[in-house]
Amino acid sequence: MTEDLGEFYLRQLRDDCLPFWFPRSVDVEHGGFLHCFDRDGSLVDTDKSVWAQGRMSWMLLVLYLELEQRPEWLEWAESGLRFLEEKCIDPSDGRMWFHVARDGTPIRKRRYAYSESFASIAFAAHAAATGSDRSASKARELFERFTDWNFTPGKIPPKFTDARPMVGLAPRMITLVTAQELELRLGKSDATTAWIDRCIEEIERYFVKPDRKVVMEVVEPDGSISDHFDGRTLNPGHAIEGAWFILEEARRRNDSRLTKLGCDMLDWMWERGWDQEHGGIYYFRDVHHHPVQEYWHHMKFWWPHDETLIATLMAHRLTGEDRYLVMHEKCRTWSFSRFADPEHGEWFGYLQQDGSPSSTLKGNLWKSFFHHPRALWICHCLSAAAEEERNGK
Amino acid sequence: MTEDLGEFYLRQLRDDCLPFWFPRSVDVEHGGFLHCFDRDGSLVDTDKSVWAQGRMSWMLLVLYLELEQRPEWLEWAESGLRFLEEKCIDPSDGRMWFHVARDGTPIRKRRYAYSESFASIAFAAHAAATGSDRSASKARELFERFTDWNFTPGKIPPKFTDARPMVGLAPRMITLVTAQELELRLGKSDATTAWIDRCIEEIERYFVKPDRKVVMEVVEPDGSISDHFDGRTLNPGHAIEGAWFILEEARRRNDSRLTKLGCDMLDWMWERGWDQEHGGIYYFRDVHHHPVQEYWHHMKFWWPHDETLIATLMAHRLTGEDRYLVMHEKCRTWSFSRFADPEHGEWFGYLQQDGSPSSTLKGNLWKSFFHHPRALWICHCLSAAAEEERNGK
Repeated sequence: MTEDLGEFYLRQLRDDCLPFWFPRSVDVEHGGFLHCFDRDGSLVDTDKSVWAQGRMSWMLLVLYLELEQRPEWLEWAESGLRFLEEKCIDPSDGRMWFHVARDGTPIRKRRYAYSESFASIAFAAHAAATGSDRSASKARELFERFTDWNFTPGKIPPKFTDARPMVGLAPRMITLVTAQELELRLGKSDATTAWIDRCIEEIERYFVKPDRKVVMEVVEPDGSISDHFDGRTLNPGHAIEGAWFILEEARRRNDSRLTKLGCDMLDWMWERGWDQEHGGIYYFRDVHHHPVQEYWHHMKFWWPHDETLIATLMAHRLTGEDRYLVMHEKCRTWSFSRFADPEHGEWFGYLQQDGSPSSTLKGNLWKSFFHHPRALWICHCLSAAAEEERNGK
Repeated sequence: MTEDLGEFYLRQLRDDCLPFWFPRSVDVEHGGFLHCFDRDGSLVDTDKSVWAQGRMSWMLLVLYLELEQRPEWLEWAESGLRFLEEKCIDPSDGRMWFHVARDGTPIRKRRYAYSESFASIAFAAHAAATGSDRSASKARELFERFTDWNFTPGKIPPKFTDARPMVGLAPRMITLVTAQELELRLGKSDATTAWIDRCIEEIERYFVKPDRKVVMEVVEPDGSISDHFDGRTLNPGHAIEGAWFILEEARRRNDSRLTKLGCDMLDWMWERGWDQEHGGIYYFRDVHHHPVQEYWHHMKFWWPHDETLIATLMAHRLTGEDRYLVMHEKCRTWSFSRFADPEHGEWFGYLQQDGSPSSTLKGNLWKSFFHHPRALWICHCLSAAAEEERNGK
């Protein structure tokens, strides 16, 4: 069965996902990538997400490094990197924009700074693909800027007063996975290892709550739960994504304690997030099972399902427990029968609670060529490795 | 038939809506109102919306002035006004907060300044109810601060760069209805009349598009449509609310040109917003019928339905056209069979596209004792007036 799974994911990547995005998304006029596409690939907005420029460049470079050295993949990724360098940085403070017009005219910067993390991994993958020292330095510099902005107290302009300070899971998760990517593409360094250690330690200390079997999305600075709408709001798909970042580190370090941590996070948030009635992963839940204030809490977004496909397969690979394959199949069957669009390829992004489509968009400022192809590629690799092992290779 | 409608709305207000909120929401400990309630009235968050403090005080005072002089309504409203004055203003700049803790500890201020407009109408209604000159001055002062913040170029900190400046329908609509309330409660003044004229003129010039039969939510400074996700996004319920603000002015001035303007806005946005498949008013639509980027675009929120009940009944009263009663009945039947909760009273706030509940919340930072009781009271008054006319009174 598992060999079929490896082939399934590679076929989805090669025949369903890649042809939707390329060459359609390559902006031959201004460089970088267009990505706001309707179901059939028609362009509904010419604006560009800076996240998407970094993420799409990175994904193309990973496939160039690991799947096939197709020269156009390198060329398109380099167009994305040039666009990032030339158009996506605010010269007044060195920070990256969040949203730019097609020609790079800046539209919006945000308080938070994830644009830098996605640009960093793209430059790191480019260094690995080409041996460019310049790209390696660029990757490290962007990572430093990202961690400096996110972890130096007082740097991020506050959204709220200081009456109720909160810390978030998100910056720790993204720092962890960015440092992991830098280690994979550029080699280990004391700095990246220290960030990985620190982020896992802080995630476990502040956000993972074994007594309640839950992973919090935000907590008070001492790790306690803030009993208000925002403090109680869980994001199961996000926590499950964080679980596989930790499982990946467990695999690299062959560390069974980390395997247990990642599996606990996955188990608890699957339990919290899986919709027993309609299937699929809820977007938000309340830690005390109160109603959630955020309007779209009941919707099923594409990316939590992509992350759950990875996390369950990785948990199976590390533990050998069959129940993770059962979870994987449950998520795979539900997702591919609802998000997929056999007519035009690629997944829809947004479903209602019952799995019916809410929007025909394939791309927008949030969705591009990233979560879905990443899941397809990692799930292919995990399945193929399991198969090789079974065959005694 | 219409006499029944008047009784229906009064019964809904007296027996279903008011008993849910009062005395439950009155915060005897800290003053002002609690409003984050679950279905059965259990409190799920002690935080307070500053909008809600002003809106709930205003609504109670309107009922005190127009329905019944119940001393507790005045007393509770005055508790809300004291909380607004003592706890909801930032002494550093005189602007109001958006979100405070139960005891008034400030949690969040926003770029925009609607807190001031709702406080202004509450003080104006208090002046009308008690003859307080102090409250009348307070109302005028808050209105001046509100218009100064919203209409003085450069005052509101930008959310985006200045590459793509946009102007919004919302500040013009809220200025219009706030000035109307001030005229009703404090008497006309050159200032309020000038603001009413200016807002109607700008709404018509920039946002109302007869060639496309649409009311835009945001436009470029010259009134042209920005062909990006944000620029194309329509909010039919909001435009229908704006339509009845204009119809109300048409009634006061006996101005048939304004009646036509309000009716056009209602007709076009009903056509754009009514869900032909499931019924109800969509939250967002795209002017070019492209997919909408905002996730919850397909959901049915309570307030657009309350606003549509008012707008259709007002349009019927001003034009005598039966089709507005047909629209009213369509919206009334759909809404009361889905938003209502006969077990515990008051409406649910958030439905999925098909009308099934998304959340059991009756109140949160956005929903309080405002849109629904306002619609019930105005619809009662419109129906009762029509009935009196028919009886030749």
